[in-house]
Amino acid sequence: MQGDFRELTVVPLGGLGEIGRNMTVIGYGDDLVIIDSGILFPSEQYFGVDFIIPDFSYVADNIEKIKAVLITHGHEDHIGAVPYLLREFDLPVYAPPLAKGLLGPKMKEKAPSKIDNLHAVNVGNPMTFGSLEVEFFPVSHSIPDATGIAIKTPLGVVVHTGDFKIDHTPVDGHPSDFRALARLAPEGAFLLLSDSTYAETEGYTPSERIVAESLDNVIREAQGRVLVATFASLISRIQMAIDSGSRYGRKVAILGRSMVNNVRIALDMGYLNDPNNVLIDIDRANRLDPSQVIVMTTGSQGEPTSALVRMSNRAHRQVKIGRGDTVIISASPIPGNERLVTRTVNNLMLLGAVVFYDKNATVHVHGHASKEELKSVISILKPQYFVPIHGERRHLSAHAVIARDLGVELENVFVLQDGDVLSIGRESGRVTDHVSADYVFVSGKHVWRATGKIFDERGSLASGGVVFLQVHIQGEGLNKRSSVETISKGFTEDPHELEYLEEASYLVEKDINRQLEMGDEKFLTREGIAKIAREKFANFLYNETGKRPTVMPSVVVS
Amino acid sequence: MQGDFRELTVVPLGGLGEIGRNMTVIGYGDDLVIIDSGILFPSEQYFGVDFIIPDFSYVADNIEKIKAVLITHGHEDHIGAVPYLLREFDLPVYAPPLAKGLLGPKMKEKAPSKIDNLHAVNVGNPMTFGSLEVEFFPVSHSIPDATGIAIKTPLGVVVHTGDFKIDHTPVDGHPSDFRALARLAPEGAFLLLSDSTYAETEGYTPSERIVAESLDNVIREAQGRVLVATFASLISRIQMAIDSGSRYGRKVAILGRSMVNNVRIALDMGYLNDPNNVLIDIDRANRLDPSQVIVMTTGSQGEPTSALVRMSNRAHRQVKIGRGDTVIISASPIPGNERLVTRTVNNLMLLGAVVFYDKNATVHVHGHASKEELKSVISILKPQYFVPIHGERRHLSAHAVIARDLGVELENVFVLQDGDVLSIGRESGRVTDHVSADYVFVSGKHVWRATGKIFDERGSLASGGVVFLQVHIQGEGLNKRSSVETISKGFTEDPHELEYLEEASYLVEKDINRQLEMGDEKFLTREGIAKIAREKFANFLYNETGKRPTVMPSVVVS
Repeated sequence: MQGDFRELTVVPLGGLGEIGRNMTVIGYGDDLVIIDSGILFPSEQYFGVDFIIPDFSYVADNIEKIKAVLITHGHEDHIGAVPYLLREFDLPVYAPPLAKGLLGPKMKEKAPSKIDNLHAVNVGNPMTFGSLEVEFFPVSHSIPDATGIAIKTPLGVVVHTGDFKIDHTPVDGHPSDFRALARLAPEGAFLLLSDSTYAETEGYTPSERIVAESLDNVIREAQGRVLVATFASLISRIQMAIDSGSRYGRKVAILGRSMVNNVRIALDMGYLNDPNNVLIDIDRANRLDPSQVIVMTTGSQGEPTSALVRMSNRAHRQVKIGRGDTVIISASPIPGNERLVTRTVNNLMLLGAVVFYDKNATVHVHGHASKEELKSVISILKPQYFVPIHGERRHLSAHAVIARDLGVELENVFVLQDGDVLSIGRESGRVTDHVSADYVFVSGKHVWRATGKIFDERGSLASGGVVFLQVHIQGEGLNKRSSVETISKGFTEDPHELEYLEEASYLVEKDINRQLEMGDEKFLTREGIAKIAREKFANFLYNETGKRPTVMPSVVVS
Repeated sequence: MQGDFRELTVVPLGGLGEIGRNMTVIGYGDDLVIIDSGILFPSEQYFGVDFIIPDFSYVADNIEKIKAVLITHGHEDHIGAVPYLLREFDLPVYAPPLAKGLLGPKMKEKAPSKIDNLHAVNVGNPMTFGSLEVEFFPVSHSIPDATGIAIKTPLGVVVHTGDFKIDHTPVDGHPSDFRALARLAPEGAFLLLSDSTYAETEGYTPSERIVAESLDNVIREAQGRVLVATFASLISRIQMAIDSGSRYGRKVAILGRSMVNNVRIALDMGYLNDPNNVLIDIDRANRLDPSQVIVMTTGSQGEPTSALVRMSNRAHRQVKIGRGDTVIISASPIPGNERLVTRTVNNLMLLGAVVFYDKNATVHVHGHASKEELKSVISILKPQYFVPIHGERRHLSAHAVIARDLGVELENVFVLQDGDVLSIGRESGRVTDHVSADYVFVSGKHVWRATGKIFDERGSLASGGVVFLQVHIQGEGLNKRSSVETISKGFTEDPHELEYLEEASYLVEKDINRQLEMGDEKFLTREGIAKIAREKFANFLYNETGKRPTVMPSVVVS
């Protein structure tokens, strides 16, 4: 597990093989830094999980070497696990100002004693951690104040792009600064770790500017109220709404807790500007003529409890959607959310709204580089070693092919998995170890790991419901008799099937009584009786109804 | 509910507002026919449901008027519910030969006594049902032998397109015959019902021919074994594999029960041709050099129990994937399946296979018309009335816009919902009623409706697990004492949390004993004790762990 002192170490603890929970440990010899610590939203098989954070075992095992946590930008999949990390380890965190601003409330809630560990970095001012000289550089992404990180090491410069695209006309006026990069690595990078999210997509990612034009057109043409749903952190879209609002005499109200919070922080820090005071609260907006209102809201991913989804289900207290409303879903569905988004679109249309979304208008561009941009970065940095990051296996593989096509030696391209320990010396690199990178689950206040079959159990409960078998044994000696009652949940709503439960209970009762009459000692333990009851009951139910609920027996003897 | 004798009636019972369970009742006066009766695959909130079928209440209420069931083609979302329909109603079914062939085994399994109700239609030969003259016409789609249906009524010709695209170079050699249509409705259609699935997509859907070229290239270049995953019913892709196999000296093995069945039927009926006898079974294929083998398999949607997914998890008995294998996923994910498909692609890559899929190669085209094709059909038929069918609300709305743009009067375009009863007279149409079009669920052998909150209950069980509280009251009068035990499932795997269950049980015990000591009659019923136990227990757990499992108490008194 110990890196050779003359070697570079790269250990992805999340974000490789999945989109989310990004976290990488990088360093040289005994000087390590962590880049990002984010959350992953669970796929459907992880019942009852709010989100997933990285496994910090490797951090614990190497805590004396780790000098700092560096944050590239303020998205949840890069900062969301930082409070959990700091609860366990007393590490300084360096983040661009907006990311620090967004982290603040999370730290206050979850790790208040470590809030002073947060530091804002001056992009362009290098910091030294032992043998590492770290410099943040600006990149364009779908949140302001996004950065990449360059680390000068004795072996050469390591460049981690963060999440980026090359937008020459970003709405926040800060394009990706790859000239800075060329300056930081004048002789090329020793190692490049680069964002793979859109490595399968040909061409260039369009500029945020075209969204601004498209949104502005829709808002200008709309007769009634306009609602715009987007990511809570997509500050540039909120700025667009404020700008178009000013232009066309509309006020802008913000809905959704996370968006309200982010807008407050971004306004305070100057990442969002409202020179004409168009921002008002929803109650005031509701008193205006609809043609004077824009509502910005969360819910662009169809999240069931979000403001937009509640509106689409007529369940929002303050906003009722109807004919005359124009809704813009200024986002594209994150893989896995397609059905939720499409359901929301359909429901809004059923209520009479005109809906613009990714399939019928240019109301969104994403924040990641496509193939040609990825090529540009590799060409500028001419890395000796290459590690594609931030993507599922398919994205990493596609990115590896790009690097190879641009002349990076095949044996110097490493498609890693979370937990791989990559060691790179002056002459060559290799995966020397694999450390734990398990999913760590967060459910409410509870942080936990799956050690057994809990998700299978939950899946079975979900698909068949549960029947509880209450077996009561009364009497003495050979006069013992059983009575069986059932309670079920999620099993059926069909009275006919409830009768089967009665019938099955009766059969189980008879069966147990027969055993009791025979007085066979080995059946007379509570465990023995429970086993008979469960099997008999489950088989009968399956034969009669074809259904397999979870059957849980309990035996009381009195 | 009674249609005016001089009116046309259109009642969609499924397929409008969703992709699946297509079923429409159409007729004139007292002569009605059913077009299609398919299944819908459930979205994630319908725990434990295999599939969803239409509600047949309207059929039951109008059974004396219904003359026949007409089937457009053999896809599950058009034929899957036919056995369930025929189990309840003795109706003749008319289907194109392949659809009849595919229906056969389903009927044998689920409605064997009605198997003789199936009849193959001669496309192009009209049939008469009372005042209706019905003629099937060929269309191109992603299964051979797909049709649309023209119905001559006293008011004019009604055209139902079925699922179609305009493919001038289909692999099966049968392009959509819209000249036949022009002949059937020489003065234009009175009413057009047209496939809306891709009404949001600009341009033309590419020909199946380009997939053939692309697959052929991959197979020609591959060094090792080639696996091709596609829909079990996509006979043309299987034909492509057989053709490429013949060309490059490879044998073809078929895996996956549904594909094996379909291939057998299609070979028997002549929809699939294997002149060089390249089809062999998998055991023989496994004895050949990998360079001589193509494996066709199910699993293109990432279905967890499919052959391809088992291969990707190293759980397939007969096929082990590894370096040297080329896998082609010749399908695109149906909305909702994206995560399952992407997980399969990632896992195959992790095993070392080269994977071609919709994002990195042209290995699939879908079977539905895009905007320009939809315009062609409307232009050819110049319908007086228009009902977009087969789509979610967003697709139907997009299609309605197309029809309006092509000159169909706005008040003659009806964007319907399942269950709407549309009545069209000579002068005008209107929705006159709304009948039940509930989801009917199929789980194994069980066909059922949700009348209450069963899916909410199942969702709660899945997200928090269940804790069963076994309360046993023993003793007499004021000496009664309780003992409480717990059994849980899917609640936790954390020993620390299991301790909380102990602690909570102890508190509940104490609480009940206090009530028992006070001898308060109103707490001494089983219901009263159960209520106290549940509340006390659930609150304690929530306060200690933040978790809310389903808590089910049962009280035994002895």
